[in-house]
Amino acid sequence: HIALLTDFGLQDNFAGVMEGMIYRINPHVTVSHITHGIKPQDLFQASFLLRHSYKHFPEKTIFVCVVDPGVGTARDVIVVRKKATVFMAPDNGILSFLTGRDTEYFKIVPNKFIPPPASTTFHGRDIFSPLAALLSKGISINKLARTVKSIKHLDIPSPVKGQKTVKGKIIYIDRFGNCISNVSRDLFTAMTGSSFTVEINNLKIYDLSSHYQIPSKAGVLFNSFNLLEIFVPNGNASQELGITLNMPFTIKI
Amino acid sequence: HIALLTDFGLQDNFAGVMEGMIYRINPHVTVSHITHGIKPQDLFQASFLLRHSYKHFPEKTIFVCVVDPGVGTARDVIVVRKKATVFMAPDNGILSFLTGRDTEYFKIVPNKFIPPPASTTFHGRDIFSPLAALLSKGISINKLARTVKSIKHLDIPSPVKGQKTVKGKIIYIDRFGNCISNVSRDLFTAMTGSSFTVEINNLKIYDLSSHYQIPSKAGVLFNSFNLLEIFVPNGNASQELGITLNMPFTIKI
Amino acid sequence: HIALLTDFGLQDNFAGVMEGMIYRINPHVTVSHITHGIKPQDLFQASFLLRHSYKHFPEKTIFVCVVDPGVGTARDVIVVRKKATVFMAPDNGILSFLTGRDTEYFKIVPNKFIPPPASTTFHGRDIFSPLAALLSKGISINKLARTVKSIKHLDIPSPVKGQKTVKGKIIYIDRFGNCISNVSRDLFTAMTGSSFTVEINNLKIYDLSSHYQIPSKAGVLFNSFNLLEIFVPNGNASQELGITLNMPFTIKI
Repeated sequence: HIALLTDFGLQDNFAGVMEGMIYRINPHVTVSHITHGIKPQDLFQASFLLRHSYKHFPEKTIFVCVVDPGVGTARDVIVVRKKATVFMAPDNGILSFLTGRDTEYFKIVPNKFIPPPASTTFHGRDIFSPLAALLSKGISINKLARTVKSIKHLDIPSPVKGQKTVKGKIIYIDRFGNCISNVSRDLFTAMTGSSFTVEINNLKIYDLSSHYQIPSKAGVLFNSFNLLEIFVPNGNASQELGITLNMPFTIKI
Repeated sequence: HIALLTDFGLQDNFAGVMEGMIYRINPHVTVSHITHGIKPQDLFQASFLLRHSYKHFPEKTIFVCVVDPGVGTARDVIVVRKKATVFMAPDNGILSFLTGRDTEYFKIVPNKFIPPPASTTFHGRDIFSPLAALLSKGISINKLARTVKSIKHLDIPSPVKGQKTVKGKIIYIDRFGNCISNVSRDLFTAMTGSSFTVEINNLKIYDLSSHYQIPSKAGVLFNSFNLLEIFVPNGNASQELGITLNMPFTIKI
Repeated sequence: HIALLTDFGLQDNFAGVMEGMIYRINPHVTVSHITHGIKPQDLFQASFLLRHSYKHFPEKTIFVCVVDPGVGTARDVIVVRKKATVFMAPDNGILSFLTGRDTEYFKIVPNKFIPPPASTTFHGRDIFSPLAALLSKGISINKLARTVKSIKHLDIPSPVKGQKTVKGKIIYIDRFGNCISNVSRDLFTAMTGSSFTVEINNLKIYDLSSHYQIPSKAGVLFNSFNLLEIFVPNGNASQELGITLNMPFTIKI
């Protein structure tokens, strides 16, 4: 299985052509489109959504993540293998959440499978798709790439823990306007006592909800990524509460 | 075959992750995406598009319809079987157009296939996709659900028939700006005589067209759903005629 | 393999229903969606994207291109075969870029495979999808269509070559705001000497870049379609430079 995640959108033919190239080489593979709606060049958003997607796909999936402002420059193309799962991306930090003993890093080296006149603007079509298709056919990573010790790192904003506060940030806003923060359930559970206040944009929220159907104007809950999320029941929290991407907020215990 | 219809949009990873979960459990099934563009929480729109889609899919399709404002609350998850076709949705009325002697209703009960820590915000990933994948592998509905007598009902606005008039409503506006009404071809044929007038938003249309290429500013025809539709040739009827969703109109005979 | 390209968008159920119809008839075929984001009724855009997509798909792909303002009128449905590749579209010029000795033209004739009550507004569902599915199952084109000598032509704006100038036009703007022109790499290479200036919207660009990461405000390069493209590094050229579709520009040598 191959799963694509890019900032190519669905207006143009880029995502479709990537799929075409894959089927040219391996007509028997299945292809999923996680999303092509990443904001152009937004490495963090790509990394964030891939991180919160990959565990829900088949173990042997090959993830191809093309958000690639440096396409055509000397930047490397990397492959990361974590147990049976394989990830391909430009070496720009998108994959840096993949760490741990069970993780191997590779970079693509010139090889007979990449036909020489690749474009300098669309490696999704000319390099990523063909190589992913070859991997899906069972070609060994070692024929395409060589081991490297490390890959580029992407800074992820961490919450700042005080004595009785946690200062977090809104790091993603979804289609429903739900405002997703960088405060994980684990951190929250470890920090908070019996009562707390979330303060954001002059709004205070006191209770942790377990779903979206609450009688209040706004609420917080832990979403399906296990991250603290601010929502408006049957509404759009971002629009109705004026919450924007990267907005800081405070949890007081 | 599994076909998905949701309000998840394509910006986030929700639709992709649903597909991933399905392939995890059944790598041999095919998955279609009817649309993920339902307006957030719009039960009527979801129901309307599903109603006008399902007959065009393979008979043994499993339709998964997730527009689910009550996710995480006590609302049921239901399965409706109509001959060889299966539908899954929250019990919120989306499936209430499925009626008749050949229709069986079920509700999901706790079962060994739903792993306990399902999220409370994304049952598309944690409940609907896994169960649909299991059904596609041949697991019997009876292992997942038990028969119920009825399901929640969704009010569909019906046209009002007078002596020499039909009062209808615009119930859907498509990407081309075509304004689709709740007046069916059958109703129209039964009601109208040799001539009629459609009056909407200070505009009068006198003739029934058989296609979009007419010399007038605006026209009406019966569309591929067999519903009366107001259009502008090579234009956008909604924008150019100021027609909005739920706008009433009158047919005079 | 079947690949779809339409102006149906992804909000409605049109693209999904086309796929459903295909699977009804041939459950074993794979279906790609090149894009459904063509601007409504924009024949040129459809033709342009198909032209720059088809070579990247498997050779035996059946391309179904439905941008069809004349649906339901007397316009023909055509099939073009180029070696092993098959294309279907309304006869409105979309396929006129397919020329040469290896190209055969057909038009669909009434046949037993088109069930009589096809709608007059959605031939994508009622005619194109079923016939493409049948072709994918190995039904001969000759059972559906008969040979014709020519198909409708679509005017493509050509660059105008002067002594020391080329006057081109912006013919497509992609999701990143890159402004794609009708000046091909071949034409440019044949015309220009050692130095040149691209003049557009009061802006002058002097150097040909090989990728997007340049220190200037704006640049030009040959993109993956081998067409001259105006870009802004990490930005949106269309928005930031005020470049719009069909804007003319001049290359001075």
